[in-house]
Amino acid sequence: MIRHFLSTQDWSRADLDALLARAAAFKRTKAGRELAGKSVALLFFNPSMRTRTSFELGAFQLGGHAIVLAPGKDAWPIEFDTGAIMDGEAEEHVAEVARVLSRYVDLIGVRAFPKFRDWSVDREDRVINAFARHATVPVINMETITHPMQELAHILALQQHFGAPERGVDPAQVLRGKKYVLTWTYHPRPLNTAVANSALQIATRYGMDVTLLCPTPDYVLDSRYMDFARANVAANGGSLRVSHDPDEAYRGAHVVYAKSWGALPYFGRWDEEKPIRDAHRHFIVDERKMALTDHGVFSHCLPLRRNVKATDAVMDSPACIAIEEAENRLHVQKAVMAALVAQPGLAIRDW
Amino acid sequence: MIRHFLSTQDWSRADLDALLARAAAFKRTKAGRELAGKSVALLFFNPSMRTRTSFELGAFQLGGHAIVLAPGKDAWPIEFDTGAIMDGEAEEHVAEVARVLSRYVDLIGVRAFPKFRDWSVDREDRVINAFARHATVPVINMETITHPMQELAHILALQQHFGAPERGVDPAQVLRGKKYVLTWTYHPRPLNTAVANSALQIATRYGMDVTLLCPTPDYVLDSRYMDFARANVAANGGSLRVSHDPDEAYRGAHVVYAKSWGALPYFGRWDEEKPIRDAHRHFIVDERKMALTDHGVFSHCLPLRRNVKATDAVMDSPACIAIEEAENRLHVQKAVMAALVAQPGLAIRDW
Amino acid sequence: MIRHFLSTQDWSRADLDALLARAAAFKRTKAGRELAGKSVALLFFNPSMRTRTSFELGAFQLGGHAIVLAPGKDAWPIEFDTGAIMDGEAEEHVAEVARVLSRYVDLIGVRAFPKFRDWSVDREDRVINAFARHATVPVINMETITHPMQELAHILALQQHFGAPERGVDPAQVLRGKKYVLTWTYHPRPLNTAVANSALQIATRYGMDVTLLCPTPDYVLDSRYMDFARANVAANGGSLRVSHDPDEAYRGAHVVYAKSWGALPYFGRWDEEKPIRDAHRHFIVDERKMALTDHGVFSHCLPLRRNVKATDAVMDSPACIAIEEAENRLHVQKAVMAALVAQPGLAIRDW
Repeated sequence: MIRHFLSTQDWSRADLDALLARAAAFKRTKAGRELAGKSVALLFFNPSMRTRTSFELGAFQLGGHAIVLAPGKDAWPIEFDTGAIMDGEAEEHVAEVARVLSRYVDLIGVRAFPKFRDWSVDREDRVINAFARHATVPVINMETITHPMQELAHILALQQHFGAPERGVDPAQVLRGKKYVLTWTYHPRPLNTAVANSALQIATRYGMDVTLLCPTPDYVLDSRYMDFARANVAANGGSLRVSHDPDEAYRGAHVVYAKSWGALPYFGRWDEEKPIRDAHRHFIVDERKMALTDHGVFSHCLPLRRNVKATDAVMDSPACIAIEEAENRLHVQKAVMAALVAQPGLAIRDW
Repeated sequence: MIRHFLSTQDWSRADLDALLARAAAFKRTKAGRELAGKSVALLFFNPSMRTRTSFELGAFQLGGHAIVLAPGKDAWPIEFDTGAIMDGEAEEHVAEVARVLSRYVDLIGVRAFPKFRDWSVDREDRVINAFARHATVPVINMETITHPMQELAHILALQQHFGAPERGVDPAQVLRGKKYVLTWTYHPRPLNTAVANSALQIATRYGMDVTLLCPTPDYVLDSRYMDFARANVAANGGSLRVSHDPDEAYRGAHVVYAKSWGALPYFGRWDEEKPIRDAHRHFIVDERKMALTDHGVFSHCLPLRRNVKATDAVMDSPACIAIEEAENRLHVQKAVMAALVAQPGLAIRDW
Repeated sequence: MIRHFLSTQDWSRADLDALLARAAAFKRTKAGRELAGKSVALLFFNPSMRTRTSFELGAFQLGGHAIVLAPGKDAWPIEFDTGAIMDGEAEEHVAEVARVLSRYVDLIGVRAFPKFRDWSVDREDRVINAFARHATVPVINMETITHPMQELAHILALQQHFGAPERGVDPAQVLRGKKYVLTWTYHPRPLNTAVANSALQIATRYGMDVTLLCPTPDYVLDSRYMDFARANVAANGGSLRVSHDPDEAYRGAHVVYAKSWGALPYFGRWDEEKPIRDAHRHFIVDERKMALTDHGVFSHCLPLRRNVKATDAVMDSPACIAIEEAENRLHVQKAVMAALVAQPGLAIRDW
């Protein structure tokens, strides 16, 4: 039984803590041999800068090699439906792609964003689930409708901000009770909810008091992720609430995490969502709002449109830990890759 | 005098057998140092998944490095005609590209499909032949109008299926007298004859009784490859015949190899070929036909359109060895690269 | 204080000589460990063959790894203006891209050609300067409005042609007093002046008597580079003059270096420049002109359109050292990368 890394919700807190500890170790000592002679195929159905660079580099720094593939561009377009009569554009089926790649490489990373036409389809996350079903090596989610690698990088950045291990604080407990605001921001296009879903589930997982700040109830996230968050609260303490009032939400916050996303009820009818989106440009993260927080830190998964999602002043302030979080992508992904090739099927904490 | 790997027909059976033996060894032991510090440039004028991944990975596993280039996309478009006044699209001539790359790398792989306008031009295989003429390092055919790497992977898969070395059978003899059907299948577009040409020449090279099954006499392959196949039969035993009757051809077969290709007499006038093609969708490889074989195995070079070229039932049956064949690409290419960098000019069997 | 490699003019002659000596050493001994465990991000905003291959390979041969990124294609489009309200196409700002990449890699290479609309904008070289401003690791110019790596490769080729070290000649002095012609040639499109600017500054830097041969005074290069050249002459000896008469310019030359470029006064109004360009196709480098030289060598940075910029006869003659120069790209870039990762802030000659 192969263990994939599709969602942090599939892994125990002890496993996640073990991964974060290992990532912190990789942050201190760059080189390793954990992937010596091993390889990972990175399949990008969408663009990438940080993910591509950090995975490719992480493999190299551990003695391995990453193969970067862009199906439909430099590789053949792929069919994902079971039983399809393939007389359209796709030249091969994921059943073959996943099985062949599994013969070549030791890990498969998949980035596949939603199609943005029908959320009931996109929420099934068919591309990565098809790879996970057919692959005989571990599959890693490089962002689909969640972004677990970003979650780990985010938490590591927060843990290190609020109390690095050297200060004698247990990193696994340091975030408990922090006031965390996940704020929607304006973006000219309706974006993926992946990072928002991820922020919600990982922030509640680590026991924070989470506020989901968004323009209207239509911007609340998919029930699957709201339910995960509520279950996390029940299991780990902390809290979850929704707010549509920026000032109220920012007040006293320790963490502000920003992301733009499209409102699910308007999925595929984005022209109708546009006026609502346009009316909420004031959700931008700026110095005035940050001043309401309790010495809060700001972060974002990047890429970020300056002066649209956050102002230059916020981005260039010491409170911004987005670059630290981006750097952590490298370290957490090395931890995940090392764990998955070492002992698939075992709990990661047993390394 | 550099020895390129452009066609299996340029190499002796002893050399091919030596390559296959080495590939089988690489299949058992992945890592090596045969390409330590060496490099290979992989030039893709057309998309690739298996070829790209297996060459890049093969170089890594042997201590080397592959550089992947897509001329006309991320590199400059190239002129191939000698004496051309280059005032069109091409920014540089293959004479420079091949000579410069030869200064950088130890091997050059080239994938260049036909243009599908004029077979009398395409059959000259000008792109790879120009590279071979100008390069001062060995050039490897990664599929042009033949696909020699696929040939070797195919034969290795068949040898291992019909009697692995551990069973005390001489792999070089195990295919002698097997009944081999190369069947055309439907595809919505007219495709390259490369893999069909290759199947014909390698199956006859290994002494099998070969049936070329295709819709009409117009689908018989180019005379160069039919002649190679006949010469192989004369030299190695076995036989070659053409059939247009699927049931008759499948009956008693030990191997069914499927490929779609465009009929050469219609080359460049593909609209006229379409009705014939459309009328032969029933050439699909299905369970009924496979049941006519003598416990036959099925294979395909991939990518394959499921339920167009072969049914899900066939693809997912134990008789399908296409994944094994795809895996073998890695092993045979490592054998070819290791041979070419080691001793260009020597027979491969002398390693 | 980080030292980038943006222009040869930023480095002392002693530093350049040290780099060339090290490049000559790398030409004799390919492998090294100078980049062991290190990495370089190569950002290509424009196509590349030699640059991409030689940087990627150079990193590998020194134990490092290159990550190749094409922003706007496989990575996110980037904003370069400070203070921009990013509601257009760009998804992230160079401030983040440069800082994040600096966390991942040890060096950043940037290729960014002009936009060809407004020279007053293009001449600011904003893309690479923005990277240099925000990056916390050394940035290397892989061709923007100059091409310093080509300069070093060019000089190394000339030094080795006119007197290799083994002949007891000081390579740093061997070019002094050589007659050097930089000739404009026809090309169907107006091209970047980068290599012309570079040739002018490096040829004068090494004390040659330089003639800039071009169709009309409109083709004289930007004053910044003309001024650099004149300052170099003042500091290093040699001379600089402009000619519009090919026969006169070629007569007695020791070096002919060819490049096409668009006339700056017509920048962005290229239709008006076209008739002038078209009227000067006879600037092609041919055997007749080369016969006027004093056993002159010919070179070009490549890519080169045969029989448009230079004839087949010239390209295929022993006088053509363009392939040697192209090979040298690998060696000089290894020298530059090794220098920059070793001791940023130190003079290169102090290694």
